Amino acid sequence: MKANYPPLYYSDYLKLDKLLSCQNPKSEEYEGKLAHDEVLFIIVHQAYELWFKQILHELDSVRDIFASDYINENNMGVALGRLSRITEIQKVLIDQLNILETMTPMDFLEFRDFLVPASGFQSYQFRLVENKLGLRPDQRKLFDKSAYYSRLTPAHQALVIASEEEPSLYDLVEKWLERTPFLKLKGFDFWENYKAAVQTAFQHDREIIEQNPTLAEGQKEMELAELSKSTEGFLAVFDEEKHNTLREEGHRRLSYAATQAALLINLFRDEPILHIPFKLLTTLVEIDELFTAWRHRHAQMVQRMIGTKIGTGGSSGHHYLRVTAESHKVFTDLTNLSTYLLPRSQLPPLPEEFRKNLGFYYTYRNDEDKS
Amino acid sequence: MKANYPPLYYSDYLKLDKLLSCQNPKSEEYEGKLAHDEVLFIIVHQAYELWFKQILHELDSVRDIFASDYINENNMGVALGRLSRITEIQKVLIDQLNILETMTPMDFLEFRDFLVPASGFQSYQFRLVENKLGLRPDQRKLFDKSAYYSRLTPAHQALVIASEEEPSLYDLVEKWLERTPFLKLKGFDFWENYKAAVQTAFQHDREIIEQNPTLAEGQKEMELAELSKSTEGFLAVFDEEKHNTLREEGHRRLSYAATQAALLINLFRDEPILHIPFKLLTTLVEIDELFTAWRHRHAQMVQRMIGTKIGTGGSSGHHYLRVTAESHKVFTDLTNLSTYLLPRSQLPPLPEEFRKNLGFYYTYRNDEDKS
Amino acid sequence: MKANYPPLYYSDYLKLDKLLSCQNPKSEEYEGKLAHDEVLFIIVHQAYELWFKQILHELDSVRDIFASDYINENNMGVALGRLSRITEIQKVLIDQLNILETMTPMDFLEFRDFLVPASGFQSYQFRLVENKLGLRPDQRKLFDKSAYYSRLTPAHQALVIASEEEPSLYDLVEKWLERTPFLKLKGFDFWENYKAAVQTAFQHDREIIEQNPTLAEGQKEMELAELSKSTEGFLAVFDEEKHNTLREEGHRRLSYAATQAALLINLFRDEPILHIPFKLLTTLVEIDELFTAWRHRHAQMVQRMIGTKIGTGGSSGHHYLRVTAESHKVFTDLTNLSTYLLPRSQLPPLPEEFRKNLGFYYTYRNDEDKS
Amino acid sequence: MKANYPPLYYSDYLKLDKLLSCQNPKSEEYEGKLAHDEVLFIIVHQAYELWFKQILHELDSVRDIFASDYINENNMGVALGRLSRITEIQKVLIDQLNILETMTPMDFLEFRDFLVPASGFQSYQFRLVENKLGLRPDQRKLFDKSAYYSRLTPAHQALVIASEEEPSLYDLVEKWLERTPFLKLKGFDFWENYKAAVQTAFQHDREIIEQNPTLAEGQKEMELAELSKSTEGFLAVFDEEKHNTLREEGHRRLSYAATQAALLINLFRDEPILHIPFKLLTTLVEIDELFTAWRHRHAQMVQRMIGTKIGTGGSSGHHYLRVTAESHKVFTDLTNLSTYLLPRSQLPPLPEEFRKNLGFYYTYRNDEDKS
Repeated sequence: MKANYPPLYYSDYLKLDKLLSCQNPKSEEYEGKLAHDEVLFIIVHQAYELWFKQILHELDSVRDIFASDYINENNMGVALGRLSRITEIQKVLIDQLNILETMTPMDFLEFRDFLVPASGFQSYQFRLVENKLGLRPDQRKLFDKSAYYSRLTPAHQALVIASEEEPSLYDLVEKWLERTPFLKLKGFDFWENYKAAVQTAFQHDREIIEQNPTLAEGQKEMELAELSKSTEGFLAVFDEEKHNTLREEGHRRLSYAATQAALLINLFRDEPILHIPFKLLTTLVEIDELFTAWRHRHAQMVQRMIGTKIGTGGSSGHHYLRVTAESHKVFTDLTNLSTYLLPRSQLPPLPEEFRKNLGFYYTYRNDEDKS
Repeated sequence: MKANYPPLYYSDYLKLDKLLSCQNPKSEEYEGKLAHDEVLFIIVHQAYELWFKQILHELDSVRDIFASDYINENNMGVALGRLSRITEIQKVLIDQLNILETMTPMDFLEFRDFLVPASGFQSYQFRLVENKLGLRPDQRKLFDKSAYYSRLTPAHQALVIASEEEPSLYDLVEKWLERTPFLKLKGFDFWENYKAAVQTAFQHDREIIEQNPTLAEGQKEMELAELSKSTEGFLAVFDEEKHNTLREEGHRRLSYAATQAALLINLFRDEPILHIPFKLLTTLVEIDELFTAWRHRHAQMVQRMIGTKIGTGGSSGHHYLRVTAESHKVFTDLTNLSTYLLPRSQLPPLPEEFRKNLGFYYTYRNDEDKS
Repeated sequence: MKANYPPLYYSDYLKLDKLLSCQNPKSEEYEGKLAHDEVLFIIVHQAYELWFKQILHELDSVRDIFASDYINENNMGVALGRLSRITEIQKVLIDQLNILETMTPMDFLEFRDFLVPASGFQSYQFRLVENKLGLRPDQRKLFDKSAYYSRLTPAHQALVIASEEEPSLYDLVEKWLERTPFLKLKGFDFWENYKAAVQTAFQHDREIIEQNPTLAEGQKEMELAELSKSTEGFLAVFDEEKHNTLREEGHRRLSYAATQAALLINLFRDEPILHIPFKLLTTLVEIDELFTAWRHRHAQMVQRMIGTKIGTGGSSGHHYLRVTAESHKVFTDLTNLSTYLLPRSQLPPLPEEFRKNLGFYYTYRNDEDKS
Repeated sequence: MKANYPPLYYSDYLKLDKLLSCQNPKSEEYEGKLAHDEVLFIIVHQAYELWFKQILHELDSVRDIFASDYINENNMGVALGRLSRITEIQKVLIDQLNILETMTPMDFLEFRDFLVPASGFQSYQFRLVENKLGLRPDQRKLFDKSAYYSRLTPAHQALVIASEEEPSLYDLVEKWLERTPFLKLKGFDFWENYKAAVQTAFQHDREIIEQNPTLAEGQKEMELAELSKSTEGFLAVFDEEKHNTLREEGHRRLSYAATQAALLINLFRDEPILHIPFKLLTTLVEIDELFTAWRHRHAQMVQRMIGTKIGTGGSSGHHYLRVTAESHKVFTDLTNLSTYLLPRSQLPPLPEEFRKNLGFYYTYRNDEDKS
């Protein structure tokens, strides 16, 4: 790197003159009188869009890492760092709502009518984020498949439609899980032993409910029914056919092999080779959680801002947002993995040959030297 | 105040030796081997309980202020300050979940079985917070009325049962709203004029939907039906009988007079006398929102921790928490007030005689001097 | 407001195509190979600049309110709301550092050399924020007066130079305090009584130190010297001449009359007419604190990023930032007001005639009716 | 684990009756009239002490891990997780200040005099945290060595004094760094090559300053002097003797070998074996930063609360806190490591034999299979 680049100044580097001329309040344009808070309304949404661009930048790079045939171990840490960055951005997305909430409903009314039918629903970048994470079109529960991009410009529509076809982060992580080498060991009867241990645990839960003196009669039956459903769901972890049935019915999304790999990563996350994979799965769940929290907070804010009125986009405001908060999750199966965990003390032991492979080459060689 | 109090030292003042001997991990007691994260589990819950005590301290004092026959204006600022403090505490309650989330599901399993049937559901202080805020027993949707305190000690039960009978913050605020003096002015035809202005506004929304070219056919009809429901709901603001019907059906909680007062406070919040009342109503909504956010985050964390298993208390964990997040709100009618707001430009003007009364005595006299 | 505005769409309203084409990484331009984290570096700074624009929008409007000859009481609440919004924005400014800190020093090095001599020091908007708040040129401690804008474009320079001449928020608040009507009451010997009460309090502090058995000898003398200095400083509150000497020496900035007004507002903040003024002064202190916290965090981040190397702007990075954190405060005299407060129980009572004037006209008339 | 543990209830588990009887306001005890905010004052400090206990629990366990002769690789992830937990706790410690700041100076005065000479300075747990992290007694800059624990109870004093002697986290991390195996490779002329690359980089910085047209004359010389000092400091990385001189003079704390190891970890952090060590060093810096931020915020709050008055402990309040904010850092040498980093493109390449050793055994064997 040489020193002969042209001198660069802050405002040129950031294109400040251009950036700071993107705020064009409609109250001023249409009525000649600026509604003070419209500037805030514009700027907060532009800040959101800048951050969406950054999230897309990270998502694209992480998808590239996972899309390669051979994932260099060095890159796993890079991928994790970039996903963690997304969570830090998401926290700021949530914090920004505190700023927007300083605008009162009366202040919003000063310019609301100028904005019809604009709506945050039309943020093509957020649609891209959802698709690239792995939201499936059918999760959107729309009247018709194209409703969520029909109002976008042709260029933006093209981007959104294309993103539906690209492999999502979800898809790529699923494939990566299915490929994880440590599943392939021969003579590893781990799952049989694990199944037995799990059945003991569920039986234990059943006794807790049955012996609970404070549960009302109806409640006890309901809890037991719930437990039976859980037990059945659990058994699918050992029954590929059952698992696939649950998938077809929409109760599971993650493939059988990927689920087993994810479970192993959770169970043996302290092994060096599983540290980053474990952190990675955890971060995906966190990304889901943070978008869920953001959607809930957003829904609350919209309710507070317009009550039960329709939104500027012509849809019934906060209901839509509240529904998507829970239904637009992507990594639910990873969140629910805890269902299938057992305490370390109840885990069937790993074969020694297998364990050795989960450490670092260097450490291993050191051991060698000692022997 | 004289200087002859006995010298006081930090650890005596805070009773540190006692406070720091309240942590008694069961893993150590039962099995002789401390599960490292059980200490965290105990301490985070104790921190919650300390903060609940503080919230109760503030709630009780604010209820005292509102319970007096004559509310000294000076005390309104005090009440507002204490409610705002509750919101700051609530933010820490939410932040504390970030600490608890550093415990992984596997770590929790190390001591989970020792805790049966303990459950956060048994926090009598949180039950008191809910009751004193104004949660009604029927909002709890339990098998029987006493289920939410049946496992408490007799002393704690007595506190909870008593709190059901005491006037809640909700009750007292409703009464205070009903009494606000500025409603009593004679010859004030505000509501008739407001009704006309509102009808114009709703007609406007109808046109927005009807002329929206991008809405699918079924969607347009659904939106219009939604709007009709909103319009009807709105008209109840001017129709005491209709309002009372909505209350009986459970669609409203706030009385007719209190709703009108709260609406006026929102519409004319810039008048000096309404500044603190407006902030107060806003803060109540914020308290609702923050508990909602906390319950949602709590539900997410429980799902991540135990998946779809039953909780240690023998109930199906995160479902209950997720349901209460939305159903345990107390001040929903205040949140929804925005439904009935109009832009300042469309508001019927206040009679001059009335406006004068909304200012400070001092300012008024200055004006007098000028005339 | 009529429905015949042209339909508006989200991406047009926010000028998304323009906004999202403002990111032009130099690593890509100069070397044809994008340094992944340069995008983050650009976007986080652009987000800062968007928020600086919003802060300036609020600062300008609040200065307008305070600049008018007669401050409508209704506008005081508006001013307070907008200053509070600034604090919410500041919190996000601090939170954004968490995002930037996900970039490691090694990642920064990938593009650092392209940026010379750009520097955050060249943010003209932040210079405007400082000047409009009330930072005085001599607080900047620069080699020459123009050093802090010499690298800006002529247009940006002109803005910064102009802002030095405009009345700052500090100036306007000081004038407003000097004018507060409640200072003018005749026969109000408040300050004499207050002086006596204060002297008692300081004597009390002296005894605390003298009787403290655990202070080392040298330490006790140092504490007493410190107290004497405080006492002397305090007496200036009652001695206009002394106060003016302290101002000339740079130990005080706020005028004598404004200091007394601010002190009264703090002492009697529960009186209705003083509620908003008290909140306003508190918010100004909070703005100072949040910029201080931001500068400290920023300095830490720079140290972590480049260690003790020079910054891209050619200055010794974090030292400058750390120094400004404390020295660029504007409202220090308001922060230090607590020095002069006494407990309510020790306050000389307000004359009844005076107190009456601090309430609302309406309340007062009600009392009238009762008599 | 069997189901026959005695049933456990929430309030017994958390010892709620005991915990919630630890709040004993002195205003009530001494004067029979509770100062409302004294309850907050007690509870916020008790919450701090609970969290300090948790931090100590984590610190002790991490020190145990590092103190063992052979650090099991599995435990490195555990140590990292526990240090990360400390940072999450620290964020809540900072957030709690927002709650305390809802107490105004006037409210504090209602009970301040009862507390003499209690002071947060007397928190023995915080002294333990400092000592166990690795604060050296001479960093405290006290009149005499025992001043920071002289007012504690004998039992608490004993704990603090003992903690001065125990190996601190700093000590143990330094030793662990000195032992890291990857430093021992033969024929590894890394440092020679690195030194040459670094000299080129510093020369480059010198040119940036010299060619900077906007620097005032005096400023340029100052910057160059600063750079010379940095360069000299840098060369110490390759010169054990120089490094040791800097240590003796107090400019460095970390040993020569540990510094080199930490630098290597930063430079090659993407190698799998270095991922956790890199995160670990980063987290130590973050712990330092968060305590610094907390101390700064704390100092601000104290200034706002008591102005320039003396504290209840008889010391000149916020000055002490502000000084410790910067001077009580423990891991400054790790923060400053960035001084010595070079861009990846300028790094001398690692010998292939060496790189191979930084990966996982498993991956390596896979490669083997392919060959």
